[in-house]
Amino acid sequence: MSTQLHIAHVRHVLIRLEETIIFALIERAQFLRNAPVYKPGLFGEALEGESLCGFLLRECERTHAKVRRYTSPDEHPFFPGLPVPILPPSGGVENPLVPNTININPKIRTLYEQTLVPMICAPGDDHQYGSAGVCDVGCLQALSKRIHYGKFVAESKARQQNEALREALAKRDPDLLMAAITDKAVEQQVLDRVAAKAGTYTADLNRNATTPTVSPDVITAIYRDYIIPLNKTVQVEYLQRRPLSLDASWA
Amino acid sequence: MSTQLHIAHVRHVLIRLEETIIFALIERAQFLRNAPVYKPGLFGEALEGESLCGFLLRECERTHAKVRRYTSPDEHPFFPGLPVPILPPSGGVENPLVPNTININPKIRTLYEQTLVPMICAPGDDHQYGSAGVCDVGCLQALSKRIHYGKFVAESKARQQNEALREALAKRDPDLLMAAITDKAVEQQVLDRVAAKAGTYTADLNRNATTPTVSPDVITAIYRDYIIPLNKTVQVEYLQRRPLSLDASWA
Repeated sequence: MSTQLHIAHVRHVLIRLEETIIFALIERAQFLRNAPVYKPGLFGEALEGESLCGFLLRECERTHAKVRRYTSPDEHPFFPGLPVPILPPSGGVENPLVPNTININPKIRTLYEQTLVPMICAPGDDHQYGSAGVCDVGCLQALSKRIHYGKFVAESKARQQNEALREALAKRDPDLLMAAITDKAVEQQVLDRVAAKAGTYTADLNRNATTPTVSPDVITAIYRDYIIPLNKTVQVEYLQRRPLSLDASWA
Repeated sequence: MSTQLHIAHVRHVLIRLEETIIFALIERAQFLRNAPVYKPGLFGEALEGESLCGFLLRECERTHAKVRRYTSPDEHPFFPGLPVPILPPSGGVENPLVPNTININPKIRTLYEQTLVPMICAPGDDHQYGSAGVCDVGCLQALSKRIHYGKFVAESKARQQNEALREALAKRDPDLLMAAITDKAVEQQVLDRVAAKAGTYTADLNRNATTPTVSPDVITAIYRDYIIPLNKTVQVEYLQRRPLSLDASWA
């Protein structure tokens, strides 16, 4: 069995991404909402029709594509038409996933700009557009990685399938698949751990009353209402497309 | 007096940057040292002779230059020859500094790659070169901002000059200037606060024994031995070049 799919490794990656996501949200929350950052075309033709946030994200992806970021199966770009890598293939770790083109980044970007930024940032405009946009790129990339990691979670579960998952896979029924991959106890463990981390990491910031920061409850709600459900959506989409013939291939 | 120079505002920026720096160091420390990331030319001609870290930093600076990052007096690029901004001037906050070209980023980059990375990262190579390099960019930009903020600290002190600073400014003597700007009690406050924050922010990570992280003592040592001294070096360099005729201009 590929190391990348050991349940322990998948869990470890997901747990470590909690720090990255919480740090990124705290960094963004030091600035106000800054609505102009998300308005396409507001800064004229120079940004090729994109918003400032979109421009910074796309240029970042163009650079990272050149050094092979998106040849890794756990990375998903927000933009199409990125440059081909200028580095030779790494010949690194084998890709344990079945071939797929699942990419829900358009949904993640809309969610982030329209829902999450207003949740984490105090209303208003501090004109720190560039700084806010740079933080947005970090948030979007971290959220995308965590949510699409559902592919690895799903493949790992499929290879260790229990009876309920075996039946759901055979029927390719999204509701049965969703029920079979759902473990409320594990979800609660994640939420408890995120709440503890968010409380810890925002503690010092809150003592410094002059900088806005994000409440731990908001971070936990983002996990509960968006990150975990979208991760499960990715799992179901992946499993619906997974060939049954692979079922016995784990070792 | 410009809002940017109120001592309270300068202190606030420096305190908030502590979170950014500590988060960035923790993010980098999840990966091993990965020496190849810093070897110029190792990845061939594609990176135009740069190391992977240098390439990611330069491309990031090219993008940020386009959206005016380096027209802000508290931002300093690592690379020369960046593109001109594609956005019109912001007409934002007035620059309270005297004109200067002080930029010690070459020293900061060498310090970071040769000294700080080995301090914060466990030895070895996990082949996560791209991820490590992306973290490096965040660390370098945060360190540069904190260290060069010495210009604002210095200008603020110059406008509220006490007797010792007045004499040192008149003589333009670097040793007298260093003595006049040094406040050991304030430095100890910074170190105590950084130690408390670093302990808090690394606490959860340390419970997760499978991910390497950075010790709070190392973060405090980086502040004590590098960040604070280099910030003071910038203060002295700035004050040595500052015209005396400005001394009475604060109001």
